[in-house]
Amino acid sequence: MKGVKSKRMPRAVRERQMMDAAVQTFGQRGYRAASMDEIAELAGVSKPLVYLYLNSKEELFTACIRREAAALIAAVEAAVEPGLPADRQLWAGLAAFFTHTAEHPDGWAVLHQQARTHGEPFALEVAAMRDEIVTFVTGLIATAAREAGAARQDPELADRDVAGLAQALVGAAESLAGWMNQTGAVSAKEAAATLMNFAWMGLGELMKGERWSSR
Amino acid sequence: MKGVKSKRMPRAVRERQMMDAAVQTFGQRGYRAASMDEIAELAGVSKPLVYLYLNSKEELFTACIRREAAALIAAVEAAVEPGLPADRQLWAGLAAFFTHTAEHPDGWAVLHQQARTHGEPFALEVAAMRDEIVTFVTGLIATAAREAGAARQDPELADRDVAGLAQALVGAAESLAGWMNQTGAVSAKEAAATLMNFAWMGLGELMKGERWSSR
Repeated sequence: MKGVKSKRMPRAVRERQMMDAAVQTFGQRGYRAASMDEIAELAGVSKPLVYLYLNSKEELFTACIRREAAALIAAVEAAVEPGLPADRQLWAGLAAFFTHTAEHPDGWAVLHQQARTHGEPFALEVAAMRDEIVTFVTGLIATAAREAGAARQDPELADRDVAGLAQALVGAAESLAGWMNQTGAVSAKEAAATLMNFAWMGLGELMKGERWSSR
Repeated sequence: MKGVKSKRMPRAVRERQMMDAAVQTFGQRGYRAASMDEIAELAGVSKPLVYLYLNSKEELFTACIRREAAALIAAVEAAVEPGLPADRQLWAGLAAFFTHTAEHPDGWAVLHQQARTHGEPFALEVAAMRDEIVTFVTGLIATAAREAGAARQDPELADRDVAGLAQALVGAAESLAGWMNQTGAVSAKEAAATLMNFAWMGLGELMKGERWSSR
């Protein structure tokens, strides 16, 4: 029975293959156009098996959103070392964000376009991920502002300002990643550098020819 | 027949009333939950009249997206005086953007949430508006960069950088406007100031306690 046994894969491996196929199909063809037949074929399994594991197209899509969101958040959080100066932390986070979205264009399309376009339940899933990223970025900016404020004994950035800046930064990153993946006009590194310059130096300094540098 | 005549409104006026009611209903209740009955009642007309003028819920929603998008773009473009220095132009555009979205929360909800959540045809409508705003902002930044570059005889911002910065700025504005209208945490003026500081001064200068000032 060795032959049979070697053909049986652990459930986790099979599920991952199905999810990989689903993310690719949803990302490239869109949620509505994607068919369970297509996903099963790409995963090299039967359609009933996909349904057995993942119930319905809706649940499969929801599972894809959750997996891709968790992977993106993990990539960004892993890149940011809390001990570093604020600008280095931001740079590491941005570089990880754009690298991950560039390397997983189908996952990003699922999160940024498909999940938001096909009804409120999916949109709420992706909003939850976004809130998590905003909270993380808010923490980064708040810590940096506290340190900078303590250094000059003059804490000036109110919580409200920090929250607004985090919203602005996350919105800018989403927009730039969407543009990068749709047009291919810039690499992940270039997108990260553009946003780092924008966010850290500001347009005003950029206009004077100043650039942020990692030194 | 004077009484009858005075009850007859020009088509344009009636249509505007229906559209106002539709934007309010779609914005507050969501596209799916909104009913044509509700919209007709709010507009003070019969449901058949709404259908006579605007054909279907889909077409009515599309007309709402177009009207609200055109109004937002017009408000921003009207506020920006081409002759002013770049930072003053940016400030005027941001102030107009956040004032308009704060004063038209239902219109903004239609554009920013509803249109993107309920299928690709609507999402494409709002993407077209977004492209128009990005083009406008790209022009602003490109002009400013050209002038600044000419002043120091060293044009450094490539077209690709300008395009990326415009994407970042528009994404930041969208994100901040959504947060402002959903949480009510800041006023339109505060949101505009936050983004002006972010975009012009950069986080680095903000951390040092610097603020952009309109002088």
